[in-house]
Amino acid sequence: MVQITMNMKQVAVGIDIGGTNTVYGIVDKEGNCLFKDNLATYISDDARVFVAALSEKIKNSVADLGVDVQLMGIGIGAPNGNFYKGTIDFAPNLSWKGIVPLVDYFKEHFNVPVFLTNDANAAAIGEMIYGGARDIKNFIMITLGTGLGSGIVVNGQLVYGHDGFAGEIGHVIVKDNGRQCGCGRRGCLETYCSAPGIKRTAFEMMLDSNEKSALHEYTFKKLNSKIVAEAAQEGDELALKVFNLTGKILGKALANAVAYTSPEAIFIFGGPAQAGELIFEPTRRYLEKNLLQIYKNKVKVLPSELPIGNAAIVGASALVWNEID
Amino acid sequence: MVQITMNMKQVAVGIDIGGTNTVYGIVDKEGNCLFKDNLATYISDDARVFVAALSEKIKNSVADLGVDVQLMGIGIGAPNGNFYKGTIDFAPNLSWKGIVPLVDYFKEHFNVPVFLTNDANAAAIGEMIYGGARDIKNFIMITLGTGLGSGIVVNGQLVYGHDGFAGEIGHVIVKDNGRQCGCGRRGCLETYCSAPGIKRTAFEMMLDSNEKSALHEYTFKKLNSKIVAEAAQEGDELALKVFNLTGKILGKALANAVAYTSPEAIFIFGGPAQAGELIFEPTRRYLEKNLLQIYKNKVKVLPSELPIGNAAIVGASALVWNEID
Repeated sequence: MVQITMNMKQVAVGIDIGGTNTVYGIVDKEGNCLFKDNLATYISDDARVFVAALSEKIKNSVADLGVDVQLMGIGIGAPNGNFYKGTIDFAPNLSWKGIVPLVDYFKEHFNVPVFLTNDANAAAIGEMIYGGARDIKNFIMITLGTGLGSGIVVNGQLVYGHDGFAGEIGHVIVKDNGRQCGCGRRGCLETYCSAPGIKRTAFEMMLDSNEKSALHEYTFKKLNSKIVAEAAQEGDELALKVFNLTGKILGKALANAVAYTSPEAIFIFGGPAQAGELIFEPTRRYLEKNLLQIYKNKVKVLPSELPIGNAAIVGASALVWNEID
Repeated sequence: MVQITMNMKQVAVGIDIGGTNTVYGIVDKEGNCLFKDNLATYISDDARVFVAALSEKIKNSVADLGVDVQLMGIGIGAPNGNFYKGTIDFAPNLSWKGIVPLVDYFKEHFNVPVFLTNDANAAAIGEMIYGGARDIKNFIMITLGTGLGSGIVVNGQLVYGHDGFAGEIGHVIVKDNGRQCGCGRRGCLETYCSAPGIKRTAFEMMLDSNEKSALHEYTFKKLNSKIVAEAAQEGDELALKVFNLTGKILGKALANAVAYTSPEAIFIFGGPAQAGELIFEPTRRYLEKNLLQIYKNKVKVLPSELPIGNAAIVGASALVWNEID
């Protein structure tokens, strides 16, 4: 093990692996990102080659920060990342196929602890270590983006389940024979409340109503949840209804979620959460409306306090502090 | 603290408080019920008076077992029992109103640890200490009876949530504007898959189809899930369809449940579970059909191994071993 002297600054590396781009950052114990860079994920179909290249970059970045910096560990958030096994298992959006022993590959280059989980779980741990859940032992993290991810924390510990894959609230089926989902099934929550889900709802409302709307100007390809939010902020009635319906579906789904782990708070993170009260107000309203009596007026729905630009790497780095402390 | 000598037999008292009757038993560490008796719950509208009477009975029962018996603690399963606070909160089926500090009342009579939770949570701990979950760290217990109760175990610990009321899978809403539930809402899982839920499904099928059935002979008051099971076992087509639909709704709901805590097994307990494969086969089939890919072929659906007659008191007594060991 490496020796630590009193004036050394302890840091962790947080890595966020995405389908096209991988971002990494060097993060201190307070959650400050001291350095950030990236590498295209697709530089090799061989994950081992990719990890070698990324490790080289990370080593140089840590060295550039000076001799007083002490690397304590590496945390990785990746789609289908398995915490127990340190593997990425059959990730549909990555070019690495099958079961990839990512943690083992990193250990070929580093002599520090390496932890891996999926991106939403990493965000939940980030919220717990650096964010709004610092004093909260039971909460649910919802990440809205291309998909709808979730991390469930019970008694201050992330729920991994018996296989490491717990916490897939985005794939709870909320509507029988509902919208087609990327997972191969139909009606998953993520097909309604992710960013693309919001777009789908916008088109559903356009085709159903005769109401004029600024959204009529957009192709299916071009429209996104940010444009819907901007239209709603300018008072576009149809866009407002899109957010109301999104919050209705999300609030109802979260009312069911509460019946499992009875959290003190639900944090919402990601692009669509930037729409603020447009999405939070109806989500809270329909959550309360649908909660079982004993849970009413107990569950806070809060925006994530993770820094929006660096959340994924800051969250991934939090895995390190959570495990080694 | 009481002195323990080597040849003393350690026992716990398990108490199951129901709307009309309260049953208690003296249970050893292996889950054997050494003695069992009961007391009408309604003997007093004052819970403190009831606890005094029950405590007297329990003390005599323990004394009757002989001087070598060492009482280690008391575990109580009760509707709306709150583990953290030791209270029964607003239980609709009990004559004791408001928040009842039941554990405090017992402590006026006993100098041993006293634990309280709801009946389904007690059953889950019973399954973990004495039953089929002895080597399973992540599982869900489903109790089918007048209602549908559940207890969720993560990493070998029961999930109580931030307020002590986690694990109400029976009150997950599975159908918008569905059947009226005792909780005041509509469409809860318990309105479909509890014993009365099975009866309701039987009448729904009778009114919908022209099929002849032995169930046509019963009034709504008289029909119950046991009669439906017996008809199904004799080949009654309509009764068979009732169990298939019950398993379909339960299997789909459990597929969603798996997405929260990814359990290794789901145990099913209670009257309707006695119907065996009539309910287990369709439940497993529709669970697998509806699971997210990563969970498929991983989750066992098993009958509870708790002794059917004494399960509630044995489960409640397990609270003691779980907490003091």
